Formats: sequence, structure tokens, C-alpha cells
Amino acid sequence: MSRQVHLNVNILNAGVFGGSWRFPGTDPLASFGLDHYIDIARKAEAARLDAIFLADGPAIREDLRYRPFNSLEPSVVLAAVAAATETIGLIGTLSSTYNDPYDVARRFATLDQLSGGRSGWNVVTTAGRESARNFGFDDEPDHAGRYTRAAEFVEVVRKLWNSWEPDALVGDKPAWRFADPDKIHRTDHHGPHFDVAGPLNVPRSPQGEPVVVQAGASTNGRALAARVGEVIFTAAQTEQEAAEYYRDVKARAVGYGRRAEDVVVLPGLSTVIGSTEAEALRRRDLLAELVPPEYALTRLSGQLGVSEDALVLDGPLPWHLLTDADEAGGSQTFYKIAVGLAQRENLTVRQLLRRLGGGAGHRIVTGTPEQIADAILDWVDKGVADGFNLMPDVLPSGFDDFVDHVVPILQRRGRFRTEYETTTLRGHLGLKIPAHTVPTSTDRVVA
Amino acid sequence: MSRQVHLNVNILNAGVFGGSWRFPGTDPLASFGLDHYIDIARKAEAARLDAIFLADGPAIREDLRYRPFNSLEPSVVLAAVAAATETIGLIGTLSSTYNDPYDVARRFATLDQLSGGRSGWNVVTTAGRESARNFGFDDEPDHAGRYTRAAEFVEVVRKLWNSWEPDALVGDKPAWRFADPDKIHRTDHHGPHFDVAGPLNVPRSPQGEPVVVQAGASTNGRALAARVGEVIFTAAQTEQEAAEYYRDVKARAVGYGRRAEDVVVLPGLSTVIGSTEAEALRRRDLLAELVPPEYALTRLSGQLGVSEDALVLDGPLPWHLLTDADEAGGSQTFYKIAVGLAQRENLTVRQLLRRLGGGAGHRIVTGTPEQIADAILDWVDKGVADGFNLMPDVLPSGFDDFVDHVVPILQRRGRFRTEYETTTLRGHLGLKIPAHTVPTSTDRVVA
Repeated sequence: MSRQVHLNVNILNAGVFGGSWRFPGTDPLASFGLDHYIDIARKAEAARLDAIFLADGPAIREDLRYRPFNSLEPSVVLAAVAAATETIGLIGTLSSTYNDPYDVARRFATLDQLSGGRSGWNVVTTAGRESARNFGFDDEPDHAGRYTRAAEFVEVVRKLWNSWEPDALVGDKPAWRFADPDKIHRTDHHGPHFDVAGPLNVPRSPQGEPVVVQAGASTNGRALAARVGEVIFTAAQTEQEAAEYYRDVKARAVGYGRRAEDVVVLPGLSTVIGSTEAEALRRRDLLAELVPPEYALTRLSGQLGVSEDALVLDGPLPWHLLTDADEAGGSQTFYKIAVGLAQRENLTVRQLLRRLGGGAGHRIVTGTPEQIADAILDWVDKGVADGFNLMPDVLPSGFDDFVDHVVPILQRRGRFRTEYETTTLRGHLGLKIPAHTVPTSTDRVVA
Repeated sequence: MSRQVHLNVNILNAGVFGGSWRFPGTDPLASFGLDHYIDIARKAEAARLDAIFLADGPAIREDLRYRPFNSLEPSVVLAAVAAATETIGLIGTLSSTYNDPYDVARRFATLDQLSGGRSGWNVVTTAGRESARNFGFDDEPDHAGRYTRAAEFVEVVRKLWNSWEPDALVGDKPAWRFADPDKIHRTDHHGPHFDVAGPLNVPRSPQGEPVVVQAGASTNGRALAARVGEVIFTAAQTEQEAAEYYRDVKARAVGYGRRAEDVVVLPGLSTVIGSTEAEALRRRDLLAELVPPEYALTRLSGQLGVSEDALVLDGPLPWHLLTDADEAGGSQTFYKIAVGLAQRENLTVRQLLRRLGGGAGHRIVTGTPEQIADAILDWVDKGVADGFNLMPDVLPSGFDDFVDHVVPILQRRGRFRTEYETTTLRGHLGLKIPAHTVPTSTDRVVA
């Protein structure tokens, strides 16, 4: 086996753990400044990672007293990073529930022009009442409705990205032809959620189209990911979970007429690295100590949709109160992961909290650089992942350790690039450039 | 008199004239790449200008065969420029008709965090059916309705920018206090157009709030500018027009309980610079020759809302067909300027087109650097402008001439800064930092 590994780094504030911001040596407020993103992106670029990734949600977190929250708007942050980097991919999250497709298409197309074809859009449907109330809704639209809208939203965005044929921008001074209207097509989309005339006012992307990223876990989510996702993020604690998701989502993609290799599946991977296993475990213990269990309990209660009183630290989960994941209000990924973990390993609430690490339910690997590299290659070799969306325990120190010590191992083993072979995100991921598709309507822009 | 002059540069594709992109030596497609913006911004910063400015409209222009159009999305472009500059202000246009206030507040607040307090938002209401049809409308909302919405939109954005008290972001590790919920306030805005709970998920700006820019010319527009604009752009061909606007908008601002000095009025100024007056005039002639009159006619017909047949190149304007500016569909500023110019100087259509230069109706000054500097200081000394929004004839060459030859004259005369005295856009403009205002609702974010 010598399949190449794909790696993104998720720049999640000061790190993915609840206590990351309190870790010794960490600047807790670094993520409000540009240098944080540029420094990590440059390190990621020097290590030849595929992309940096920014999560998002358009609302404050209720627990912001205790931990960082989604704050800076990703498309703006990524543009600043674009100016300070040359090759690394730039993936950002924007909600399909609380934006307009024309605006989203345009922001990522702009980022793509400025970065020479390095942008990727992570489509999310944004759970939660808090976000809804910032956009004129009393409560979040229902789960199925958000996904129906998302599917149409992506369809419109892609039509807009196809408004311009590759050679429609001309700039021919003697012929007095700035652009060629015969090669610019209206979108004329009319659907249940959107009416968008188009064309987009940004020419075709240097990489054909920005890369579409999705992370669906529910039934609706998997369907959307398989239909539109070119990179698919997922959360899996075990090889079995990863294998089930990998096979399912690729089969679904094929069912939508796509090729399995057009879909790059990247589970989240939290890393806690030490020069010895004992040192890594001490680091993991320290991270756990930085989150008092009382607070972790409050947070878990919200995530599972049960009252805090129902959770006893040294008791089992209140199984009789746990509703089906498809009916849970928050992230279904997290819900399934947490409940599955507690069930499989018969964990008390306290043990579950320690296993989750305050993160979003992603796999945590604790160990030496060799052990981390082995864990990465194990899943890739077993065909249950195409690589990982890295969620370092602490930023930047945990990521420094990864690029300084884990990446060289992967490179020595011939499993990770030592130089970029392309200059676009699509190229790094091995995704094909989509053929240009003229939208159904072929009305010319001008008569 | 030694009032200091304020200067922004409007980076409008390859320049403000219809023929700018065809000017010898110009790269017609430069404005689709990042270097164009960074190079001009760095030159502007070296010359100590107040800000760069990006106009916008979320739709293709029908005449894109013949000239550049609004393309790249300004907040994304400005973020990239932020990473490549240190001190210059960054003003970008976003429509209040086709966006949500939470998203706009957040994007400019993010730009402000990343740039250390250098962002400004130019509020526009976006005329035109083409934009409307990209956002689910059959036609543009009526003029008055767009301005009513804009006023409420700005109110909501400002409430969101005031969600966080200046010291609400804490990052106190020992006290386990990341942010202080007692100092973060809900917006709870409920109005005719918007219901927004808030708070914003971005802390208070390094300059208090991003600067609000407006360019209203109609009765509704002037009212909005006077009520919310901190920088006000305007188009004036003559000193009298400038004086009337300046006095009117400052008086209206005072009527809204503001101080006259809280409003910085910057007319647009197109410059055509030569080392001799003759050279400048030849440059102006060349620019005119790069736009065939037949095309200019088509464009003027759209701008005035009359059929092309009604416009005869060597005849007068068809006065009987010209409706009142308040009922014109497009930019009322342009309409008034063009009609006023033709009327005042008794111009034929051909002469009018030459005077307008294919631009948006802004004053054009053609001459030596001394003459340009004199023209700038003349209006500032007469108290009809606080400075100018520069629209160079050709980018970058026309702007190079301005910073290399005009700025030093203004500096030698003691009328323009030779070093920045502040690091924020608000500081450069001499605008006060607004006192933090707790929104009417003082609900705490968490119980």
C-alpha cells in the first residue's frame, strides 16, 4: 500500500479541547488576531498539508464565559491568509440556511481568484436556535427543511460558478472586447427556495470551481454529502464507525452517478503528542484537568438534550431520557458518537467526558509521533479514510509538534508529499477539474 | 487656512474612465488578481492616504463586453489587502438591500479585528433590476423602501457592534473566565424589516466601531447620509453643487443631533495628470478616443432612462423625455450631475459625453500636479469639501502620478500628513471613537 494521505488542519481557536485556551504557554486570545491564522497556515504550507480549515456558526456560544466560540467570519479570515501564503488550500464554512447563494458563490469565487484556485466551501446547515434568531427566525428551520434548502443552495451556487466559460474573460484592447457575452450564461434558476437570474459577476475559477466540502452525519446529511461533497468530513471514534461511513457515503456517491474517487473522506483527528507515550498521557491529563467536570457536565447536558440533573458524574448515562439522534436538536454527529462510546465501553458520565476531551466527539489519538503516524496510516491502509482533518489539542504548540515530528515520518514512509505538485486545492486533493457546464438556460447576457 | 485634506483612492478596476482598461500600458485584467489591490494599497499607504475604497454591486453589467464591471467581492478583497498593509484604512461597499445585518456587521467587525481597526463600511441601497433578480426579487424594491430598510439596517448593525463592552473579552486563565457575559448584551432588535437577537459573536472593534460611509444624493439618500454617515461621498461638478451639498448634509447631521465635524464630506475627484497642461490634455483626449461615441451613447441612454433613438450625438438632450431625478431608475447622483452639466453649459450629447468621460459623473480635473493640488485645496479652503475620494483616470499609472507628484505638493504646503499619527481609519479621519452604548435591552447572554 502506498496511498497518499490527505491532511487539513482545523484552526479552531486555541485548540479543540475545552481546556486548550488555558494550556500553559497558550495565548488565549490569539485567535482574535490575524497572526494566529497566518502563522499556522504558513507552517501547514511548509509541511505541505492540503489545506487549512475554519469551522463556523453565526451566533455566540452560551458558554463563552468558559471557552472560546465561533467568532471571526471565515471568508474574511481566509482572504487575509491567502495574501500571506502561496499554495495551501483555504477551506471555510458558510451556512446554507442563513445566506444567499449569490453571495456565497461570489465570496468563494473571489477567494479563488485572489488565491489562484485554493478555496473550498464547507456547506453547513447550522443547527441551533441562537443562529436562527440572528436572522429573523424564532427558531431553527427543521432538520429536513434545512437539508432540502442546502441541496438546492449548492445546486444554485454551482450553476453560478458555471456562468462563465473558461475563456469568457478576454481583455482584448484592439478588438475593444473586455469580456465575451456569448460565453457568459444566465443561471435562471427557479426552485422551491431560490430564484436566481445570474450570471455570477466573477469569472470562472482558476481550479474550475471551488471545492465543495460537507460533513453530513444524519440520513439527510449523508445524502447531501454523497450528492455534492468533494471533501467529506466525518467524526468516527472507531475503525468500524469509520468503515461504515466511508463505505456508505462512497456507495451513495456512486448512486448519484459520481465516481468513488471524486469523494475524499477525511475523519476528524485530535492529536495529543508527546516525545514519549508517558509524556503524551500527562499532556492529555493536564488538558482534562483544565476543564472542571461541573462545566463539562453542563455542556454535555446541552449536547445530549437532557437536563443537567439527569447526569450524575459517576453514574451511567440516563438511557431512558435519550431520544433518537435524528430528533436531537444539536449536532447529530456528536450525539451519536457520545452515546455510542458510552454504550460500547460502558462508561460513566465522568469517563465519557474524559474520552470526549471537551471536543466535538472526534477521535483522539494520544502518543508519540510514531504512534500518531501509525494511527493515521492504519485507517488509510484499511481503506476507511483518505486522510484526516487534524484538530490539534493546543494551538499552535500541538500543531508545531505535528508538523515537526509526525509529518516527517509520513514523508519518510513515502505516504505524504514533500513538495506540492499542484498549486490548487483541487490539485492537492487529487480531484478532477469539473467540465464546464452551461446552465440549462442558454439565454445570452446581452441581446 | 491650514485644514488638513483627507484622501481616499477608489480602486475601480483599471480606472474610472470608460476607456481606462484600453489605455496603453494598462493590464486590462489586472483587477481580477490580488496584486493590483495590494500594489495600489501599499502605494497609498506610503503616501499616507486615509484609505482605499472599493465600490460594489452584486450583478453583472450588461455592457461587460465593452468595459470592466463590479466583480470581486469587496470584504474578501479588503481582508487580503489588510494582510499586506499596516496602517491604511480599508473601506468596502456592501448592499443593505441584499444582505442581512448580522452578516454585514460580522464581516466588517472581522475585518476590523484582523486589521487593527482599519475597516469602513460603505452602505449602498443598490439600484437596478439585475441585482434584484440575483436575490429572488422580480425587480428592485422601490427607492423609498430601500432607504427605509437601509436606515434600520445600519441601526441594527450598530447595535450589534455595541453588543460587547470594550473589556468583555478577558482570557483570564486562572479565573477560568474566557469572556465576561455581564458585559455582552443582546441586541433584541425588533423592527419593520429586521428581528435580530444578537449579540454579535465578534468583540468590540479596536476603533470602537467600523466607520460608516454613505453616498446619498436623493432626498432619501441625503437624509440617510446625514443620519448615519461618518464619511459621505458625493459627486459634484461645480463648487456651487459641492457647497450646496456640503452645507445641506452637515446641517441635516446637526439636525439629527450630531456635530458637523463628525461628518467628513469627500466629493469624488477624477484626475488626469500630465507634466505639462498640454500633456494632461493629450492624455484626456486619448482617454476619450478609447471609448467610441456610439457605445457611450448606449450607456448614457440607460443612465438617463431614455431610449437610444432619442439621443442625437450632435443635438441637445431630449429635455421633454427626462423625468425627475427622484423617479429615475439608476443612480440619482449621476442623473442630476449629467442633466445639470448639459443644462448649465448648453452641451450637445457628444460634448456631454466628453465632459463625463465615461465615469460616474464625478468632477474631472485635468492638469499638472500643481494644478491638481490647487484644485484640491481650493474646495477644501472654500469649505465645500473635507477632502476627496480620488478616482484616478488609469490604474496604476494615474495613481502613481498622483502619489509621486501631487501628494508631495500637498505635504510641502503643510496640508497633508507626512506620517500617520494614528493606526485606525477613524483616527486618520479625525473621527471620535463612539462611546459604547448598551443596547436598550440589557438581558444578559447567559443566566
